[in-house]
Amino acid sequence: MTMALDREAARALDAADPLRGKRAGFALPDGVIYLNGNSLGAAPLSAAARVGRLVRDEWARDLIGSWNVHDWIGAPQRLGARIARLIGAEADEVAIADSTSVNLYKLLVAACTARPGRKTILSEPGNFPTDLYIAQGVAATLGDRTVRTVEIDRLCDAIDADTAVVLLTHVHYKSGHMLDMAAITAAAHAQGALVLWDLSHSVGALPVDLNGCAADLAVGCGYKYLNGGPGAPAFLYVARRLQAELVSPLTGWMGHDAPFAFGDDYVPATGIARFLCGTPPILAMAALEEGLAQFDDVSFDDILTKSRTLGDHFIAMVEARCAGHDLELISPRDAARRGSHVSFAHPDAYALCQALIARGVVGDFRAPDAIRFGFTPLYTSFEDIWNAVEILERVLDERAWDRSEYRVRAAVT
Amino acid sequence: MTMALDREAARALDAADPLRGKRAGFALPDGVIYLNGNSLGAAPLSAAARVGRLVRDEWARDLIGSWNVHDWIGAPQRLGARIARLIGAEADEVAIADSTSVNLYKLLVAACTARPGRKTILSEPGNFPTDLYIAQGVAATLGDRTVRTVEIDRLCDAIDADTAVVLLTHVHYKSGHMLDMAAITAAAHAQGALVLWDLSHSVGALPVDLNGCAADLAVGCGYKYLNGGPGAPAFLYVARRLQAELVSPLTGWMGHDAPFAFGDDYVPATGIARFLCGTPPILAMAALEEGLAQFDDVSFDDILTKSRTLGDHFIAMVEARCAGHDLELISPRDAARRGSHVSFAHPDAYALCQALIARGVVGDFRAPDAIRFGFTPLYTSFEDIWNAVEILERVLDERAWDRSEYRVRAAVT
Repeated sequence: MTMALDREAARALDAADPLRGKRAGFALPDGVIYLNGNSLGAAPLSAAARVGRLVRDEWARDLIGSWNVHDWIGAPQRLGARIARLIGAEADEVAIADSTSVNLYKLLVAACTARPGRKTILSEPGNFPTDLYIAQGVAATLGDRTVRTVEIDRLCDAIDADTAVVLLTHVHYKSGHMLDMAAITAAAHAQGALVLWDLSHSVGALPVDLNGCAADLAVGCGYKYLNGGPGAPAFLYVARRLQAELVSPLTGWMGHDAPFAFGDDYVPATGIARFLCGTPPILAMAALEEGLAQFDDVSFDDILTKSRTLGDHFIAMVEARCAGHDLELISPRDAARRGSHVSFAHPDAYALCQALIARGVVGDFRAPDAIRFGFTPLYTSFEDIWNAVEILERVLDERAWDRSEYRVRAAVT
Repeated sequence: MTMALDREAARALDAADPLRGKRAGFALPDGVIYLNGNSLGAAPLSAAARVGRLVRDEWARDLIGSWNVHDWIGAPQRLGARIARLIGAEADEVAIADSTSVNLYKLLVAACTARPGRKTILSEPGNFPTDLYIAQGVAATLGDRTVRTVEIDRLCDAIDADTAVVLLTHVHYKSGHMLDMAAITAAAHAQGALVLWDLSHSVGALPVDLNGCAADLAVGCGYKYLNGGPGAPAFLYVARRLQAELVSPLTGWMGHDAPFAFGDDYVPATGIARFLCGTPPILAMAALEEGLAQFDDVSFDDILTKSRTLGDHFIAMVEARCAGHDLELISPRDAARRGSHVSFAHPDAYALCQALIARGVVGDFRAPDAIRFGFTPLYTSFEDIWNAVEILERVLDERAWDRSEYRVRAAVT
């Protein structure tokens, strides 16, 4: 069992951390302990200069010629190849495009269409809402499909000959529970179903091995642990063996086999390019590329080890120092079953979260009663989490959260 | 008939141009006559600083809190309201979201679903390819719809009781031909069909009056005459009277009635917000907002007058000075039927276009045989077009385009 750290021990862990040098690559404001990189990653220090250069030295100077001169046109695949390394995929299996939600729609429709006799999209209740919403939109569009949700511990048994696709988030957005990608994928394949993994809450914080799990399809977010900036474009993965079979419903010109031939009939491109749709968002991609560059010289073993150690120590400290304050751990205690964030339930979670933010500890609230604390291995330090628990303990001891001003709901929670 | 300008007359027109002060707001490189703002608008001078500030002073400093503090969450509607003014819409009828192609898909599916007994999406052959491709993707997804194309001069007669939606581009991407939005919309309504207008090649260069035409639906591009930057997010318009009836198939969380309640079931938001999908791309929106700011103190009469006068003079100069060189006008001669670009066919259009670009005159090639010259009223001057024709005349007289190096095709043409 992990013992609660004291400050000196936390500093010693930081001094021994092989990733300690990475923090200097990020802008982290003084006085803030940022435990919300799982929602919006911090800004790489190089990002402001990069987007400024893109505007001044590419767009403003070379104008339309930049699509060729600066290889803007290759950005979706060039960045895709960088992400492939983070998720156990081949470079030609990943592309950057659109948002996570739009990519979910593309791949769900393509998967359902490729399994025409199977009428069910299977997921779990409480999955990240946009995943369920998009699945419902797919069912509504196609007309003859149903979205079925089954509690995760019975989900594999519910996969059957009617299951077209299983839609799951690798790490649960609220609880941090990490699913067994290999086992669930195998169970789905045994029944002839496809699996679509949402990697939004794992990519960049934990190693993912899509090809090692014989995965079919995946999507993921660019602005959480990948630090691509607010609303950064997302990515999609289609296993090479499925690329010829699947066709996107969003048949935009960038997915055409010859987009500049300007013919009237859609012909899907060969390979991953057929899952592109509109003109790629070049400014946003430049920022995302700076986020991805932070992973260039990083060991994934180090990322995994640090993610788990941060979580273990955080749980141990909270439980040792904040006992008797109605905090209940809702994340798995076993680090091997947990992503890189830890959540606690609290009867007044919203106000508690606001009181912490007012004191510089930035986690977030998730309805109805959870506080999440996210640990980004590239920049969260052990001293950060020691300080965070120090402040949390004081806020609880003093009931400092129990003020009406902390109950005013903001537009974005 | 417009007489061919000489240089002094061109300068006199510039001196009298009420929009002459707007050019100073854009970065236009020395030695370049940029006649391609219809493909990628020039960079506002303020754009680099703005995106740098967004990264440094919002994302890096206020992190996740920026969604509230800097009203990132309101950006899709705030920018939508600015565009509304350019297209004759109410502020609550327009939002920024996704790409033009994705927005076309949303509105086409929503329109078809709202007209279930009608099986045809009607368009014209040679419409902008992504419009036709997306329509084909919609038909493939829905299963029971057909895309029918009819030459534009017979299109109104082809609208019938089976037409769900008429899909047309207001200004044709190649020819520059501008359609009669009011007449076609009325003809469609007389048959009970909806109309979806693609404004990509008109918005920002010509006044558009959607509400004056009783228009139903529209989409448009952010990176052409709106100068929002490469791959800028697009906009969509849904007439207020249709907003409750239509539902997007792309039911992402940002279109939910309560996105932060994190419920399992999709409930569409009231109003234009239901057509949002994923997390809005904030960096790209900041650049687009700088593009939109260039229109703040501009008269639309001035924009229209200048667009037409530039086009008329360009045609007159080319025809007077480049006769006998196989250039054939393929745009309408009548400015009232023309958008803000002028195209000529030429037997070796690709090489001619490359030779012009090598000499600083940037138009573009459109397969198989067209050269387009776009006039952006905010920054194209009369002396620009005089200089462009001067260079064009020389390239043709000297057959300077007839070199193998100008026939090497680039990835993006």
